Amino acid sequence: MNEIPRTERTTLKRLPKRGSFDREVINTILDEGFVCHVGFVTDDKPVVIPTGYARMGENLIIHGSRASRMLCALGKEVDVCVTVTLIDGLVLARSAFHRSMNYRSVVVFGRAHAIETRTEKLAALRALSEHMIPGRWDYVREPNERELQQTTVLSVPLNETSAKIRTGQPVDDDEDYDLPIWAGIIPLRLFAQTPVADPLLRMDVDIPGHVRSYVKP
Amino acid sequence: MNEIPRTERTTLKRLPKRGSFDREVINTILDEGFVCHVGFVTDDKPVVIPTGYARMGENLIIHGSRASRMLCALGKEVDVCVTVTLIDGLVLARSAFHRSMNYRSVVVFGRAHAIETRTEKLAALRALSEHMIPGRWDYVREPNERELQQTTVLSVPLNETSAKIRTGQPVDDDEDYDLPIWAGIIPLRLFAQTPVADPLLRMDVDIPGHVRSYVKP
Repeated sequence: MNEIPRTERTTLKRLPKRGSFDREVINTILDEGFVCHVGFVTDDKPVVIPTGYARMGENLIIHGSRASRMLCALGKEVDVCVTVTLIDGLVLARSAFHRSMNYRSVVVFGRAHAIETRTEKLAALRALSEHMIPGRWDYVREPNERELQQTTVLSVPLNETSAKIRTGQPVDDDEDYDLPIWAGIIPLRLFAQTPVADPLLRMDVDIPGHVRSYVKP
Repeated sequence: MNEIPRTERTTLKRLPKRGSFDREVINTILDEGFVCHVGFVTDDKPVVIPTGYARMGENLIIHGSRASRMLCALGKEVDVCVTVTLIDGLVLARSAFHRSMNYRSVVVFGRAHAIETRTEKLAALRALSEHMIPGRWDYVREPNERELQQTTVLSVPLNETSAKIRTGQPVDDDEDYDLPIWAGIIPLRLFAQTPVADPLLRMDVDIPGHVRSYVKP
């Protein structure tokens, strides 16, 4: 197991058995999500912005957006907390108190820095595209110089991070298992539905393999 | 239209046409989501924690969790930014640059305070339960005094908030519409699957109507 070193802020105080520092567990969660929530501090106050992301090896790449504009305005490197959460189900316990959800989340603490060089920026944009839908980058028109300059891409190292996971059935108080109350889980899952072509599509363009055979990770 | 007053930090600088201050639009998004991301500042650094929530009128109720413990440790009232994001689809443009996602998000700025009185706490816990699955609160064992004391519930007023929404097909550069490249959207949707009963369930307990007929909002 490839364990990421624990720090004060990545160590769970509550329900520590739900925590994981296993890089493979963390990577699997990060590779499945589409949106992260980027937290940063501005005027001493918190801001949390949703944005697209990708994992590139042991770095998290965050897409240009309002978040990156605000982050960059603050200086070269800025503290962020990036959180990715996947929802797996509703957990219906016999008591109101033990109601819960099944989920997998990753919290990343670190300093975001802007990717500056052309080569690195292209690699990061490719990672963002391939994270969303594999096979698309080589199919579409690549960014021109003006677009590259307009795009801000941030990178955060994945070296202070942990996962938190809840799975399975409710855990009720011993005496509540005798109650005539239904308990269980309602699984939730994000599905990809049939692709909808742009009505402005050229008539002679067929749906490519990477779209036709797309399966949500 | 019931508009929420704009402030400096709820006004979108980028793509302002995607923003909305309509309370009905904001409420609909909040009522559909399951998990919010709560951002707060500790030791001058941002922390973003996922947690369950519910809307109770014009307040957002946040469930007790590590976040609320950390929030409460900081004092009576603390600045938070709470963000809810619903993912609606992948937007596949003809150029890499215009790749996007369809989403609906709400950002709430405000000060969280702990709900203290027994009556208010019970009302908030009911709202949290009914938000997750309507009809469950009156069916399960209600919280006892010890559980009520253990539970922290926070409230944030919904008076500094805005929604951001992207819908529909990609918007490509004019000259790119002639390219022989497929463009369109892959809709994504969170579905509830068949409930899975707890194996420790009493044999004589039938699945209740609120579970059998549950439909994800």
